[in-house]
Amino acid sequence: MNGAESLVRTLVNHGVTQCFANPGTSEMHLVQAIDRVSEFNASLCLFEGVCSGAADGYGRMSGMPATTLLHLGAGLGNGIANLHNCRRAGTPLINVIGDHAIHHAPYDAPLTSDVEAVAKPVSSWIRSSRTSNGVGLDVADATHAAMGNHPDPNGNIATLIVPTDCAWHDGIERRQTRPFVERAKIDTQVIDTVAPQIDANTVLLLDGNALTEDGIEAAGRIAEKTRCSLFTPTFPARVEAGPQLPSVNRLPYFPEHVLGTLANCSKLVLVGADVPVSFFAYRDQPSSLVPDGCDVIHVGHRHEDVADALIQIADGIGANNFVAMNGERPNVPQGRLGARSIGQALAALAPHESIVSVDSGGGGAAYDVMRGCVRHSWLNLTGGSIGDGGPVAVGAALACPERTVFALLGDGGAMYTLQYLWTAARENLNIKSVVFSNRQYNILEVEYLRMGVNQVGDRAARLFDLSHPALDWVALAKGQGVPAEKATTSEEFSDALESALACDGPYLIEAEL
Amino acid sequence: MNGAESLVRTLVNHGVTQCFANPGTSEMHLVQAIDRVSEFNASLCLFEGVCSGAADGYGRMSGMPATTLLHLGAGLGNGIANLHNCRRAGTPLINVIGDHAIHHAPYDAPLTSDVEAVAKPVSSWIRSSRTSNGVGLDVADATHAAMGNHPDPNGNIATLIVPTDCAWHDGIERRQTRPFVERAKIDTQVIDTVAPQIDANTVLLLDGNALTEDGIEAAGRIAEKTRCSLFTPTFPARVEAGPQLPSVNRLPYFPEHVLGTLANCSKLVLVGADVPVSFFAYRDQPSSLVPDGCDVIHVGHRHEDVADALIQIADGIGANNFVAMNGERPNVPQGRLGARSIGQALAALAPHESIVSVDSGGGGAAYDVMRGCVRHSWLNLTGGSIGDGGPVAVGAALACPERTVFALLGDGGAMYTLQYLWTAARENLNIKSVVFSNRQYNILEVEYLRMGVNQVGDRAARLFDLSHPALDWVALAKGQGVPAEKATTSEEFSDALESALACDGPYLIEAEL
Repeated sequence: MNGAESLVRTLVNHGVTQCFANPGTSEMHLVQAIDRVSEFNASLCLFEGVCSGAADGYGRMSGMPATTLLHLGAGLGNGIANLHNCRRAGTPLINVIGDHAIHHAPYDAPLTSDVEAVAKPVSSWIRSSRTSNGVGLDVADATHAAMGNHPDPNGNIATLIVPTDCAWHDGIERRQTRPFVERAKIDTQVIDTVAPQIDANTVLLLDGNALTEDGIEAAGRIAEKTRCSLFTPTFPARVEAGPQLPSVNRLPYFPEHVLGTLANCSKLVLVGADVPVSFFAYRDQPSSLVPDGCDVIHVGHRHEDVADALIQIADGIGANNFVAMNGERPNVPQGRLGARSIGQALAALAPHESIVSVDSGGGGAAYDVMRGCVRHSWLNLTGGSIGDGGPVAVGAALACPERTVFALLGDGGAMYTLQYLWTAARENLNIKSVVFSNRQYNILEVEYLRMGVNQVGDRAARLFDLSHPALDWVALAKGQGVPAEKATTSEEFSDALESALACDGPYLIEAEL
Repeated sequence: MNGAESLVRTLVNHGVTQCFANPGTSEMHLVQAIDRVSEFNASLCLFEGVCSGAADGYGRMSGMPATTLLHLGAGLGNGIANLHNCRRAGTPLINVIGDHAIHHAPYDAPLTSDVEAVAKPVSSWIRSSRTSNGVGLDVADATHAAMGNHPDPNGNIATLIVPTDCAWHDGIERRQTRPFVERAKIDTQVIDTVAPQIDANTVLLLDGNALTEDGIEAAGRIAEKTRCSLFTPTFPARVEAGPQLPSVNRLPYFPEHVLGTLANCSKLVLVGADVPVSFFAYRDQPSSLVPDGCDVIHVGHRHEDVADALIQIADGIGANNFVAMNGERPNVPQGRLGARSIGQALAALAPHESIVSVDSGGGGAAYDVMRGCVRHSWLNLTGGSIGDGGPVAVGAALACPERTVFALLGDGGAMYTLQYLWTAARENLNIKSVVFSNRQYNILEVEYLRMGVNQVGDRAARLFDLSHPALDWVALAKGQGVPAEKATTSEEFSDALESALACDGPYLIEAEL
C-alpha cells in the first residue's frame, strides 16, 4: 500500500467517504487509490470553487467532513472563496492538496507555489506530509481537526498537503483510535443565570445547533412561556424550518433594519450566535447592531452544545409546549413574477423534507414564505462570497440523495460557479435550480444609491449591468447537460416548477424578473 | 476629491488606464471615481479569474500594468490562479482590493478576511492604505513596484488594499515624479566572456525581452554565425514569431523529451531564462534537465535587458545577418480534424499581426506550424494553471484593438474561466476562440499511464472524462452572447475560421476531436 492508498483508506476508517475532486498530475497516485477503494466516492467538479462549496454543503447536511482533492496552490486558490463561506459556516471539511515531490520543490518548476501560505487564511489546521509512512497519521489527525468542535476563527477546515513522493512511496493505513470530540456542554451556572432573565423584551439569537430541530423546539417552548422573540442571524449556515416547528424569524440585512427589528429588545441572548454587526461599514451607521441600553448575554458559542442548553433552560422554567407554525400551503401565484411569487410557488409545490440552498437576496425572500408551509432545511450563504448556492446544493444532494434540493441563485452569483451544473448532470443530482435573472448586480446599484448618489452614471452603470449581452441561462444549463426553461410570469414559473419536480435529476428555471 | 478619485487619477497620471473589475459594496466609491475619470477604462468581468488573467494579457501586450478591482479576500482568492500565471510571466499588474473600513474590521463581519495573507503568495509588493490622504502616494508606489523590473520570485504584481473609509474621506492626487526603472543592462564583462564561447553545440535559451523582435533578430544573427541553436522555454510568456524572423524552437514538455532535445548541447546559455526543470517530478526522471557534462552559462535574468546583450554579442562577433523563416502559407487542411490540422488552418488563414493566446497542449502544437507563416505574438500559459488562455486573450484584445486575437483552449481548461466569453461579447473584442473539445482531461490520462498503469479503472477514468455529459460549447458561448459553431472535420474547421474572421467581434469554434 502506498501513501496515497493509506490516505484514502484512513479517511474511510474515520467515516469520511465523499470527495469533490479536480485533480492534476501531482494527484495521480491519489486518483489511483480512489480507483482501488470502492467505499470512497469521488465526484468530479470542473472548477475548484465547486469542490469547496460542495464539500461545505455535504458537511452541513451530513455532519461529517467531505474532502476536496485539489492541485497545488493554484487549484486551492480557486477554492478559497467558498472555503471562506465554509469557515464562516463552521462546517467540517478536509482539503487534500497535492504538491510537488519534496525533492522537486527546490527546482521551482512553473506550478510551484507556497501551498501553506495559500491555505492559511482559510484553514484552522494545516500540515504538509513529510514522509509517506506518516500520511496515514497525518490524515487521521486531519479528520480529528475537522471534527474538533473548536472555537477557531477559521472554522473546522483542515488542509493536508501531500507531496507526490509521499503518495507514491509506502504508506500505513490507520484505524480510528479515539472518538471525535463532542460539542462541549454549557456550564449549569450559565444556564441557571440566563434562564430567569428571559422575558418579553428578550431576543434569543440562535445559531449553531440551536437551529436544529431539537434546538428550535426548545427555543419555541421558551418563547411560548416567556413571550421572548426568536431570531436567526442574517446568514445562518443551516436552519430547520417547517409547519411542525415554532416560528424563528431571520434578522434583516441592512444595519438600520436590524436596529429597527431589535428596537424593543432590552436583552439579547446569544445562543451559538455572535453579536450582530453591520455587513459593511456605512458613514452614517454603527458597526455593532446592539441597541443602546440592551444587555448582551452569552449562552454559548457555535461549536458548543447550545441546543442542549436551550432544552435545559426550557425544562428549568417549566416551558413544556411550543406553538407550531402549522401553516397551510398557499395557492400557486399568478401574475407578475418576482421574488415573492417565486417563494409562494415554492411554498405551494416544494416537497416536504426539501433542502433549500440560497446565496441571493431574491432567494432569501423565500424563507419567510416557505417556513410555515414546507418542512425543509435552509442552507444560507454565510460568508458573503456569492457563488456558493449551486455548489452547496451539489454537496447537499450527494449527502441526502432522497431529498429534493432547491438552489435559489442570483444571476450574478451563479455566474461565479456555473460549472456546478455539470456535476449536477454528471451525478444526476436532484437539484432544481432557480436563477433570479434580473440582469444586474442589483445589490450594488442599491448600495451605490445608499452612498447618497441620486443618479448612476453610465460608466458606473456598466459595472452593475448584466444585460449587455443578456445571459441565456437555458443555454448555459443545456450546454452542461441540465434541462432548463425560462419563466416570465408566475403561471409559467409554477408550470416550470412542476416540470422540474416531475423530472428525475437536475433542472434549471431561469426566472426572468 | 476623495481617496477613491485620488487613486484613479493617480493611476492615470502614471499611464495606467485599464481596469478589469468585479467590484462589490466596499468598492462603490472606487466605482464612483471611475464614473468621473473618463481617461480610465473599466471592463466588467463576471469572475475574478477573468480579471486577473485579462490584466496579465493586457500587461504582456502593452508593457504597462492594468489593474484588477476586486472585492476583499474572497474576490482576490478567485483571482489567485491567474495571478500565479502572471507572476511566472513577470507581467506588471496592480491589484486594487477593497476592504472593510478600518474601524469596521475588528467587528469581524461575515466577509472579513485577512486580505494581505491572501495576497502574499501572489504579490511582490503589498500595502494596505491607512489614511485617505495617503492613498494617492500608495498607488503611485504601487505603479513603481509593478514597473520595477526587479528580480522578485513573485514577479511584478503590486497589491494595494483600500479600506472603504480611505476611499470615502479626502484624498490627494499624485503626479508621476520619477520615471519607471528601466531594465538593467548586462555587464560588458559578462558579454565579453560569453560571446567567444558560443559554438555549434551551444543552445541559447531565450526568455524575457530576448523574445522580442529585436532580441530574436540578434539571436538569429548569432545563430547564423556560430551555428548555435535557439530555443524558448516550454512556457514563455510572449514570443514574437513570423516569416520575417529567424526560427526559434520551443523546448518540449516531458523531461525525457527535453533531455533528448538537449542531448548534443555542451553549453546552455541562459538569456533571460531559468535552468530548464521537469514540470512535475517522476520517479525515473531527474528534476534538472541540464544534460550531464553540459556547462550552464548565465547571461542575465528575465527582468534585465537581455535583448541588448544579444545585440552586443552579435555585433561583437561580427554576426551581421540572420536567416528569416520566410515560409509560405500552407493550403487549408483536409480530412480528419486534429491539433495539427487546426494549426495548419491557422497558418493558412490567420491575419498577419495576430495574437495567439494558448493554454492547451493541442493549441501549443500550432506554434511549430504557424511561426514560419504568420507574423504573430504568441502568449503562452506560463505557470501551468490552465484557464488563462481566454482571459489573457481578453486583455490582449483590449491592449491591441486593431489586432486579431486567437484563444486556443482545451475544453477542460476553458471551463475554469468560461466567463471570459461574456466580457468578449460585452466589449465586442476581436477574439476568435478555438476550443479543442476532446471531452477529457487528456493530459491526466497520459500522466496516469506514465505511472506504469496499463489500464485506467472505471472510477479513475471518471475523474478524467468530460463526455458524460458532453459539454456543448456552442451553447455555452451563445448563452454569453458569443456566436459559435462546431467543426468536426478540417474542411468544416477552415470554413468556420473564415466565418469567424469575417465577423467583427468574438466568435467561438468548438473543434470536436
